[in-house]
Amino acid sequence: MERDKVKVVIWGFGAMGSGMAKMILSKKGFDIVGVCDLYDKIVGKSIFDHLNVENPYNHDVVISNDIDSILNNNQVDIVLLATDSYTASAFPKLKKIIEHGVNVISTAEEMSYPKANQPKLSEELDILAKQHGVTVLGTGVNPGMMMDLLAICIGGVVEDIKEFEISRINSLSPFGKTVMEEQGVGLTLKEFTERQAKNEIAGHVGFKESAYMIAEALGLEVVEFKQDMKPIVTEFDRKSPHGFAKAGDVCGVEMSAYAILDNGIKIKLYHPQQIEPEMAGVSTGDYIKILGKPEINLSNSPEVEGGIGTIAICVNMIPHVINAKPGLVTMIDLPVPRSIMGDVRNLIRKD
Amino acid sequence: MERDKVKVVIWGFGAMGSGMAKMILSKKGFDIVGVCDLYDKIVGKSIFDHLNVENPYNHDVVISNDIDSILNNNQVDIVLLATDSYTASAFPKLKKIIEHGVNVISTAEEMSYPKANQPKLSEELDILAKQHGVTVLGTGVNPGMMMDLLAICIGGVVEDIKEFEISRINSLSPFGKTVMEEQGVGLTLKEFTERQAKNEIAGHVGFKESAYMIAEALGLEVVEFKQDMKPIVTEFDRKSPHGFAKAGDVCGVEMSAYAILDNGIKIKLYHPQQIEPEMAGVSTGDYIKILGKPEINLSNSPEVEGGIGTIAICVNMIPHVINAKPGLVTMIDLPVPRSIMGDVRNLIRKD
Repeated sequence: MERDKVKVVIWGFGAMGSGMAKMILSKKGFDIVGVCDLYDKIVGKSIFDHLNVENPYNHDVVISNDIDSILNNNQVDIVLLATDSYTASAFPKLKKIIEHGVNVISTAEEMSYPKANQPKLSEELDILAKQHGVTVLGTGVNPGMMMDLLAICIGGVVEDIKEFEISRINSLSPFGKTVMEEQGVGLTLKEFTERQAKNEIAGHVGFKESAYMIAEALGLEVVEFKQDMKPIVTEFDRKSPHGFAKAGDVCGVEMSAYAILDNGIKIKLYHPQQIEPEMAGVSTGDYIKILGKPEINLSNSPEVEGGIGTIAICVNMIPHVINAKPGLVTMIDLPVPRSIMGDVRNLIRKD
Repeated sequence: MERDKVKVVIWGFGAMGSGMAKMILSKKGFDIVGVCDLYDKIVGKSIFDHLNVENPYNHDVVISNDIDSILNNNQVDIVLLATDSYTASAFPKLKKIIEHGVNVISTAEEMSYPKANQPKLSEELDILAKQHGVTVLGTGVNPGMMMDLLAICIGGVVEDIKEFEISRINSLSPFGKTVMEEQGVGLTLKEFTERQAKNEIAGHVGFKESAYMIAEALGLEVVEFKQDMKPIVTEFDRKSPHGFAKAGDVCGVEMSAYAILDNGIKIKLYHPQQIEPEMAGVSTGDYIKILGKPEINLSNSPEVEGGIGTIAICVNMIPHVINAKPGLVTMIDLPVPRSIMGDVRNLIRKD
């Protein structure tokens, strides 16, 4: 193998970042050259101790809170940035990485199609990336695959589309405390309404990104977009490892959206998330219906779990991002995603 | 709109070619500048009379049997070649198109991943295409999407894969006489066995291509490949518009294959095709199971109909092929497929 190993830095070492590290350590041809996180309880620790895995390298990787020193002192092919949900908050970090001349994949939901909510920042990122000869991609399981890219892809065998009806019905049970808080799990209805009014319930971030990505893929524009968020109230007590909702309280969030494109195509998005959906007879899954010629009825049940799915797609897109032309790109600009199962260097183009 | 319309020639005006013409005529930004077919009953006819649709252009399109004159006398962006199943038989036609300096999409099943069965011809095509600055792609609903590309794409959210189990259970009832003959519908078991021994039952062409495409996508190689073909015998009379099988006779073909990749991953492919499957309680559909982390259970039921699906994917890939770098490419080299719903010129890159 002529090419050097693919040198990765992970910025943000929570559930996503540390999951990516574990996945990368299980693959051939990668080298994690640095990890950055600000959480002082883990700074200074070896990632191998932290992850409780053997160190396969001939060097240690110590968690640092100084990204500049990581990027100055290493040759880096790509940074996986797992710190934010919004383009605006990820922006200064993205800028820093780009200015170091390094490619980057961001987990920020808005970054999966940043033009939808941040057209100016997107333009800035694109110009910066081109100036520095690097590629910037945002991706994740959703937005990034289950409610957009997969529908776009199967649409390739469709002659004529009238409507997309895309649902992702998932369980919040595998998630930790932060997600419980962001989704309002355990709140009374009154508390939920108050927090929602103050914009303190995140719900799902990504509908607008999914709708705009689909529109661009089809060669169309979004002329109308609306989304809605409602609490899911449980009729009985529900308990998950990190969440609890009493009967009558909130056990999750029901999100829905619709978009109309300039030729009248409708995109309907539906994404209820709750702890212990099975208790209420809700079977989870990813569903893509396309009304058109032919009709499509794609389903994947149970759903692709959010955590694993996002970890996998971020790592799996590394070769595509390294191979891509410089600039800000989205999932529809790059070749079809795939799982890296051989040496990652087999997937890096020589030219 | 600055760019000229996308100028298309269709070579082969059977069910596929004429279906593509109809689809193209329903889209914005295309111009069909020529159609070639050798069948003397349609040569000399206007395609608009033949298709029984209104002519939206300010020029007629008359079916010609002289591809050279079509390619010499028109500026052409792409040829849709819908004449063959095998790379070897499509090769002289592909060569001619390439030497005219024109991009081409082939419906030949083997061309979806021609290296699998024709590595030398593939190399020749690649060199020729690069010399003439054009792009060559083979695609279709299967191989091309349902048993390969879709599995590759959803694999993007998978961390680790042990096995692919991919089935396409479809009905042959919509198909015409040629397909009935190729699949042995209506033969006695004895006749089927005799014809199979003489290689006169085509069955499904494409398993090897699908397996090799999946392997390359994952960064692996195929170390073992086997496929099998069995008749499906009906227990009762079955009748479809163009086929008939008596009780005890053959109503279709059951194809299966498996491949082993160099890290031990198995790919199992199963594709039974028969007329009137519902009569035997067989529900049709496309199924992709990935044993791995996470497990994937994708299904689309009923199946994407072969005819429409192939017509759609060939037309929908036109912008990607025009945008691509010169050479022989496969579906895994190009951006995610998508349905052209706006003006096709919106999907052609300016650079």
